Amino acid sequence: MSVMEMSHRGKEFMSIIQKAESDLRKLLEISEDYAVLFLQGGATTQFAAIPLNICKPQDDVDFVVSGSWGDKAYKEALKYCKPNVIWSGKSNKYTALPSFENLDQNANARYLHICANETIHGVEFKDYPEAKNKDGLLIADMSSNFCSKPVDVSKFGIIYAGAQKNVGPSGVTIVIVRKDLIGNAQEITPVMLDYKIHADNNSLYNTPPCYGIYMCGLVFEDLLAQGGLVEVEKKNVKKAKVLYDAIDASGGFYRCPVEKSVRSLMNVPFTLEKSELEGEFVKEAAKEGMVQLKGHRSVGGMRASIYNAMPLAGVEKLVAFMKEFQQKHG
Amino acid sequence: MSVMEMSHRGKEFMSIIQKAESDLRKLLEISEDYAVLFLQGGATTQFAAIPLNICKPQDDVDFVVSGSWGDKAYKEALKYCKPNVIWSGKSNKYTALPSFENLDQNANARYLHICANETIHGVEFKDYPEAKNKDGLLIADMSSNFCSKPVDVSKFGIIYAGAQKNVGPSGVTIVIVRKDLIGNAQEITPVMLDYKIHADNNSLYNTPPCYGIYMCGLVFEDLLAQGGLVEVEKKNVKKAKVLYDAIDASGGFYRCPVEKSVRSLMNVPFTLEKSELEGEFVKEAAKEGMVQLKGHRSVGGMRASIYNAMPLAGVEKLVAFMKEFQQKHG
Repeated sequence: MSVMEMSHRGKEFMSIIQKAESDLRKLLEISEDYAVLFLQGGATTQFAAIPLNICKPQDDVDFVVSGSWGDKAYKEALKYCKPNVIWSGKSNKYTALPSFENLDQNANARYLHICANETIHGVEFKDYPEAKNKDGLLIADMSSNFCSKPVDVSKFGIIYAGAQKNVGPSGVTIVIVRKDLIGNAQEITPVMLDYKIHADNNSLYNTPPCYGIYMCGLVFEDLLAQGGLVEVEKKNVKKAKVLYDAIDASGGFYRCPVEKSVRSLMNVPFTLEKSELEGEFVKEAAKEGMVQLKGHRSVGGMRASIYNAMPLAGVEKLVAFMKEFQQKHG
Repeated sequence: MSVMEMSHRGKEFMSIIQKAESDLRKLLEISEDYAVLFLQGGATTQFAAIPLNICKPQDDVDFVVSGSWGDKAYKEALKYCKPNVIWSGKSNKYTALPSFENLDQNANARYLHICANETIHGVEFKDYPEAKNKDGLLIADMSSNFCSKPVDVSKFGIIYAGAQKNVGPSGVTIVIVRKDLIGNAQEITPVMLDYKIHADNNSLYNTPPCYGIYMCGLVFEDLLAQGGLVEVEKKNVKKAKVLYDAIDASGGFYRCPVEKSVRSLMNVPFTLEKSELEGEFVKEAAKEGMVQLKGHRSVGGMRASIYNAMPLAGVEKLVAFMKEFQQKHG
């Protein structure tokens, strides 16, 4: 019987989801103070679920908007609380992050929200700001750098992530939520967005995305077998360095717009000085088997997404191609 | 590249989801008056999404509660409109359906909601009541009999179904919604529950459950190749007859509590006259490779779910086992 055919309440699938949770707890050293939920609907669903679960409608919330995803989270929160953008990277086209000292946090805010890695803009937090609100609550969307490096979960009230970048197929969303934050959802919260329902039912309130959770479990096993997230981070640092070094050594032929100190290990956006060559670049790369290099439609240019599953050799191949392309067109 | 690795905005996946939608439109003869959405979160998410999308908070809505799922849909709707149970099968332990003439519909209701097939109780609508509310709106949860037989979609405002019973793996929810019902969601609607967002973006507003949608597409192809839903229904009728006949011919050793006229083609609940033998029945059946026969924890007894994917031979094997078991223990 395939995992796709199992009853989600049978002991076979129960042991699959329990093992997945337990391996993820090992990987991220998640304490028993936190619930680990396997949900559906992507980070976008959490943009609503978080304020619905932990805010009253009149609560202030601080948002750092460092890219498109942070902006979407902020806009969705407008429906359920009083969010304030305390810093935005928009005027710099989302190529930087704030210095933490200068963040004008609201002492009365319910929480501080950040997007740990902006997939489209390639901006990544290397460290995290201390939440200076009344309960010291920091919440992070880690969709695109989840399990790419160690994280001190205890610094966060909630960490959430769509699985599809580093840990599984699309259709699974992982929410790590401090247990004391569970159980006070607003009355208008759809049952499927209520953390208490899912925590009380071990993510089995209704039929979960069984096959996707099974795949996530296999990935967690593999990451542990690789030596855990410290080792995974080393590989990701090395991969990213090879690519950023190549860009920076191209004499301006390639450019990465992001400030060096906050460049993402996962998503490397770059442009060509001769922007008219970008179409050609994408086309020739595809001929060599390197696809999905076109930047997000909202920003243009190129973007290399080098998630956990991308091997160093893949990055080296791209860099060799980039040098060749520059020689031909430089 | 696997479907799991594709960008959901790449032309490869676009052609997969478009083909899936177009094949489903053929199967159910869905007109262009309807949008077909591939979503996440199961029918349970739709229990909230439907009133959020098409009701004002003060709107009355009529519910026929023919089992657990209809009851859950009603309870969730309490958050977003004024639902009324106009008929409940609870006092008969959900073994019957109402006669349509006697349904006390509210002329001012926004819609009439039914669950076309109650998975747990094995009660299935063979025909559908005419909605006598102001806009003639009938809405059905078809999660557990979707694509098991032809349906005249034009009789419904919305049909919705979790994919995992007949058409794909868990994690995909299909919503067929008349286009004029889209675009008036309540302000508190999470963006992921707003039909307009998904219809405007062809179900690609955020990353969809790509692999699950791909699998659904393969199933739709297969159902068309089988000759469409008329042929599929014939097979399902035959399978169900073999099993119900065996139960009814057992002289009371096996009993199906459901009224004959509304017995489900998909879920066949039955009990043993000697209920103390039920554990033994489930155990011996499992030894013969027939698993998941235990009734839902809320009702007990046994339940054989004989969805599209169950071949006639599987049902015949079960029936042979049932006869043998009766000879041994009768």
